[in-house]
Parts: sequence; structure tokens; C-alpha cells
Amino acid sequence: MKKISRVTMGMDKVSNTPIIFLQVENTNTVVPIWIGPCEAGVIALLLRNEVFERPLTHDLIGNSIKELGAKPLEVLIDEFKKDIYYAKLVIEKNDSQIVYLDARPSDCIIISLKNNIPIFIDENIVNEHGIDISFIEDENEEHIKKDIENFDIDELRKRFEGKNKKGDD
Amino acid sequence: MKKISRVTMGMDKVSNTPIIFLQVENTNTVVPIWIGPCEAGVIALLLRNEVFERPLTHDLIGNSIKELGAKPLEVLIDEFKKDIYYAKLVIEKNDSQIVYLDARPSDCIIISLKNNIPIFIDENIVNEHGIDISFIEDENEEHIKKDIENFDIDELRKRFEGKNKKGDD
Repeated sequence: MKKISRVTMGMDKVSNTPIIFLQVENTNTVVPIWIGPCEAGVIALLLRNEVFERPLTHDLIGNSIKELGAKPLEVLIDEFKKDIYYAKLVIEKNDSQIVYLDARPSDCIIISLKNNIPIFIDENIVNEHGIDISFIEDENEEHIKKDIENFDIDELRKRFEGKNKKGDD
Repeated sequence: MKKISRVTMGMDKVSNTPIIFLQVENTNTVVPIWIGPCEAGVIALLLRNEVFERPLTHDLIGNSIKELGAKPLEVLIDEFKKDIYYAKLVIEKNDSQIVYLDARPSDCIIISLKNNIPIFIDENIVNEHGIDISFIEDENEEHIKKDIENFDIDELRKRFEGKNKKGDD
């Protein structure tokens, strides 16, 4: 397993689909994972440190786990099969027993960012699907910054805060 | 607390925002709650009994709770404050202790539908925000059916399944 040192996000302009880039620690290699627009919205807000008054869906996962005396430990992205990535959310119970929960990488990455737990990815996946980004290293930050800004943050905030109408959720 | 007997969904054509209608048991009263598009997508798929191969975000909540030896018990929509509804997801631990988790109604309603647990709503909220739907009773089913169909289900499926590209989540 390889540790992920940075999570960034961009848009696949061809399919107009959000992509998460998982950078492998101490390398210039990123693994791209195409994700859904809802999960991308949550990640975009997290990467911009946006704060919400009400618990969002993934907060409810973290809060459930903690209220039941357990804690999120780490995320494993450990399989790639028929063009889909598979992940596990690893939880430690209060008796130190470890629980592995089958999950989508996007949910796991959000939980990792919210709870500050590490993400590990299978070495074979990195070898097979990793992309060397050395050639764009210099402009990388700017590029990523611009990509994140492609998400309409005001629109996203509105979606999650939902404070415009009487009787919002 | 009043029990909810039916959850349906429509679109607020003015604000182009999805609305959940919670029908109070043995009455013609519904309480409307405006929700976000992502949560609406999940609820639309649930109301149409769509099944997915991978666990979606709210499945991960249910799975976390169950793997930790607890079970979702009920949902309480118990407060309305500054134009926002507040809810609690009630969980029963394996030692019978009850845990109340602060949550948004939309997340709770999805968990209720997925886990077949009851929803209760505060009587004052029903009195203040309930709408009598007797006058549309006859065409209600058709109306609701049509509203749900306003959601582009193919688009929604694509979002959640995400099977079109290599490296999907």
C-alpha cells in the first residue's frame, strides 16, 4: 500500500466529469478517479475549507461512528475491477477491534478529509493507473487552483446551506 | 409527535427546487420540506426502487451503524427555526442505550426509506406548516407520479452508477 499525500480535484473537460487526483507520497505520480457531481461538490467545499452550520451527509457518518464509541482509522483503495475503483473505510471499535466497510472511494476520500485520516492505495493500482505529473510540476498549483474554481462555489454553498426559502432542510 | 405514513417528492417550479412531502398518518396533511438536488436525486431513485451495485453514501451510514452493533431506530423531525428544519436520527446501541444524532431531515428521510424505520414529526410543526391536500386527493397519485418523473432518472442513474468511463468511483 502507498500513502496518499495530497488530494486535488479537476474537471475532465471531455466528459464534463469531476476527477479526483490522489498524489502518492514522495512521488510525482497521481491516480485519477472520476467521481459523481454530488461528491465532487462536497470535496470542492472541503478543499476550500467552507464551513456549514448543519451536519452534511458525511458528517453524519463520522458522527455515527464516534457516537458509537468507534473512530475512523484509515481509507484503503484496494481494488480496480471492471473500470471501477473499490475502497474500504477502516474503523477501530472501542475494544480495538478493526472493522472494514465496503465503500466507494469518493465517500472514503470525503471522510478522510473531514476526519484527517490517511488514505492508502494499492501499489498495483498506482503502477497501472498512475500518471507522472513531473512535466506540469511548475504550473501544477495554479492549474489545480483554476480547476477547483471551475466549480461554482456559490451554487454549491446554496445547495448545501439551503437558506433561501422557508422550510429548507 | 405525529407519524409520517408516506414520503413523496415534487418540484417547486418557482425556485426549481425539489420538495419532499411528508404525509401525516391518517390525515390529508402534508408537510413540505425543500431539499438539495443531491439528496433529491437519492430519494427519487429510492422511490423508484432503483438498485445499485456499489454502496451509496447513505448505505455507508446504515452499514457503519450496523457493523458497530447498533441499529437505526427512528427519525424525529423536531424543530423548525430560522426557516430550517432540524431532525434527529435515533440509534439503538447493542446495550439498548439510545443515541440521538443531529442531522438534516433529508439525510434522515433517506436513511428511513433505506432501513424501513418510521419518521415522526413534531405536532407544532404540522400545525404550523402542514398543508391540507384533500382538494387534490383524487389526482394526487398521478400528480406525484408526474412530479417524480420530472427528475431525469437516466441522468441520476449515470451519476450514481458512474460506469461510463475507465476509473470511475
